[in-house]
Amino acid sequence: MSEAAPKDAEEEPSAATSTDPLEVIVRAGVVKDVIGQMQSIVDEGVFQIGREGLYVGVVDPANVAMLEIDLEPKAFESVGDGQFPIGLDINRLEDYLKRASKSDPVEFEYLPETRKMEIRHEKREFNMAAIDPDSMRNGPDDMVPDVPVSFSVAVSEFRAAIEDADLVADHVIVEADPDAEEIRVLGNGDTDDVRTVFGNEGLEEAQVPEEVRSIFSTDYLVGDDGMLNPMPKDAILSVKLGDEMPLKAVHELDDGRGSVEIGLAPRIVSD
Amino acid sequence: MSEAAPKDAEEEPSAATSTDPLEVIVRAGVVKDVIGQMQSIVDEGVFQIGREGLYVGVVDPANVAMLEIDLEPKAFESVGDGQFPIGLDINRLEDYLKRASKSDPVEFEYLPETRKMEIRHEKREFNMAAIDPDSMRNGPDDMVPDVPVSFSVAVSEFRAAIEDADLVADHVIVEADPDAEEIRVLGNGDTDDVRTVFGNEGLEEAQVPEEVRSIFSTDYLVGDDGMLNPMPKDAILSVKLGDEMPLKAVHELDDGRGSVEIGLAPRIVSD
Amino acid sequence: MSEAAPKDAEEEPSAATSTDPLEVIVRAGVVKDVIGQMQSIVDEGVFQIGREGLYVGVVDPANVAMLEIDLEPKAFESVGDGQFPIGLDINRLEDYLKRASKSDPVEFEYLPETRKMEIRHEKREFNMAAIDPDSMRNGPDDMVPDVPVSFSVAVSEFRAAIEDADLVADHVIVEADPDAEEIRVLGNGDTDDVRTVFGNEGLEEAQVPEEVRSIFSTDYLVGDDGMLNPMPKDAILSVKLGDEMPLKAVHELDDGRGSVEIGLAPRIVSD
Repeated sequence: MSEAAPKDAEEEPSAATSTDPLEVIVRAGVVKDVIGQMQSIVDEGVFQIGREGLYVGVVDPANVAMLEIDLEPKAFESVGDGQFPIGLDINRLEDYLKRASKSDPVEFEYLPETRKMEIRHEKREFNMAAIDPDSMRNGPDDMVPDVPVSFSVAVSEFRAAIEDADLVADHVIVEADPDAEEIRVLGNGDTDDVRTVFGNEGLEEAQVPEEVRSIFSTDYLVGDDGMLNPMPKDAILSVKLGDEMPLKAVHELDDGRGSVEIGLAPRIVSD
Repeated sequence: MSEAAPKDAEEEPSAATSTDPLEVIVRAGVVKDVIGQMQSIVDEGVFQIGREGLYVGVVDPANVAMLEIDLEPKAFESVGDGQFPIGLDINRLEDYLKRASKSDPVEFEYLPETRKMEIRHEKREFNMAAIDPDSMRNGPDDMVPDVPVSFSVAVSEFRAAIEDADLVADHVIVEADPDAEEIRVLGNGDTDDVRTVFGNEGLEEAQVPEEVRSIFSTDYLVGDDGMLNPMPKDAILSVKLGDEMPLKAVHELDDGRGSVEIGLAPRIVSD
Repeated sequence: MSEAAPKDAEEEPSAATSTDPLEVIVRAGVVKDVIGQMQSIVDEGVFQIGREGLYVGVVDPANVAMLEIDLEPKAFESVGDGQFPIGLDINRLEDYLKRASKSDPVEFEYLPETRKMEIRHEKREFNMAAIDPDSMRNGPDDMVPDVPVSFSVAVSEFRAAIEDADLVADHVIVEADPDAEEIRVLGNGDTDDVRTVFGNEGLEEAQVPEEVRSIFSTDYLVGDDGMLNPMPKDAILSVKLGDEMPLKAVHELDDGRGSVEIGLAPRIVSD
């Protein structure tokens, strides 16, 4: 789903870029969900926004974690005809939306001439300076080749297993065992070990054609700014896993009108 | 309402001061409300207390903010015949009342000879040293001349507008526009601006005979010890505003048996 | 109740110690209650566990506070035939149980050969290194001789009285007055004093044959790691008090299938 969007987004904006303002109306809750997920790895990002919906792709400063968010145009209450790359400080944006309830419509008006974003809800109006997209980090390359194993699990269950590994070590091993038809999440510490076994119970669905095993930093997943933290607990995460390959995990946004995909590079282990 | 009380309070106590103990019974919630409001600008204060009720007037160390609290005698369950200026450490007083519920009657007995306050509720008894009022800062002068504009607004709405200004700047502009019949609360930051407009909606009542505009420090209003913080969210604040003049705001205490008035000097702006 | 258990526990384990694993199943809530109480004075402890139930006796590093916990075998869902002294880091143990609900059965399997404890609940498995009991502090001597006064009081009431004393001083005086038939809890500070009086109301039961008075550090009772903090608020504490003697207080665990006894040495006052 995210494979196509970034390419379009990168190529079309320049063609579509005009000096006409872009006006978008969207429920505050949708924007807050996008911001919440982005905050786990960045403080600012380029929003490709307009008649094709929204695409945001960001990479953390260490190039270890990435995030792609797509929203279909129908996730918006109303959207203008333009399409712009708009660089925004997401913590400020969060501040400016904090009085709006989830279902409150928020008007965004982007003025390309002055590179200003006007944000209006109820009796409030915020005039926010946007950031030049050219001065910002590039979004993610499509860094994950196909991997053999996939499984679906509730966010709360997957997060709990990784937090448990984090009790004894700063890394977590995720392995798939085709014989036992299990996904295992392991923490190996100096004195203590932890394991959570997902078998028939605990998994929504699993494809385990071969044995694979990868190691990840727990901090990126469940640390203070862990990528799993902002996800809704009952969301179903579709995870893709390979042998010493990046982990990819996708979940739905706004009742299927969008999606969030995270990617995390494996730790290299010499043993 | 507070104009008369401080004068009486300042002149009469010396006449009324005797060495007989003063006993007062008052619901804990009333005292807690008074303390909570005082804590926004001071740690101690002189309580003028007795047959005429209660008056407290305090000024913050920087002489920027002031607070006057009046309570009628009928706000007390029972009150003795004397009238004393009693200096108290309000954080200690708060500690000693923390186990009492809002409606619990609390007995205060002041012993002028030893300058001790005995505080009793349920099976507890606290013997608290009072502070010599002569060693404490004076209360406020009546520092605010008449100003032309007045309006009434819910505490929660006014506070929200100032907190939003505080997102982009350390000062807030409050201005009244007679043509638009609006009160506007503005924050002007280096890159971003915020405005909240109170028109027919949002205001309980407004008198805007002329255009005025004053600038205030947000910290005194909504910072960690902001004067608006302890106020009940649904209380109605009667605000008086002038052109580069102090802001005054009054709200009721104890269902109209008393009042709290805050005053805040404007910031001087040379532009 | 605790007088007999530690002796048995100290003598029998060596006889019973074998190399067969010990398996115990117990509800998570019972173990969490034991850990919570222990954490107030230590980070690790020796659990005497097996067919005779559980006994833990610990002393704080300063030798001022002690704690003894007894659980009858019927507090366990199932228990093997051995009996072992097992040294455990209780903060780690708490971590490993945090996903288990109170009523969840938890399997503990101790492997004496490798000195490892396996802990299993639901789909999780923790392999925890135990600590050599010989390397750990000894448990408490039976340090409290008989004292004349005893009374029973709700934990919440006793704790409140001591916290109030803590507002003005770092020590608390507990005294019993046979004439007034009162237990008094006093805080004497430099400027302020506090007293809570437990008479007919407030006490469940009292034996006050003579006047006694002892002084204790408030920190051990209600400080950040105060021994009264983890106790259930509505539990009834049976307190024993002497004249400049240690305080003992017992309350029930797991609906009477066990007990917790704390002991606190008095502060010596030269006056």
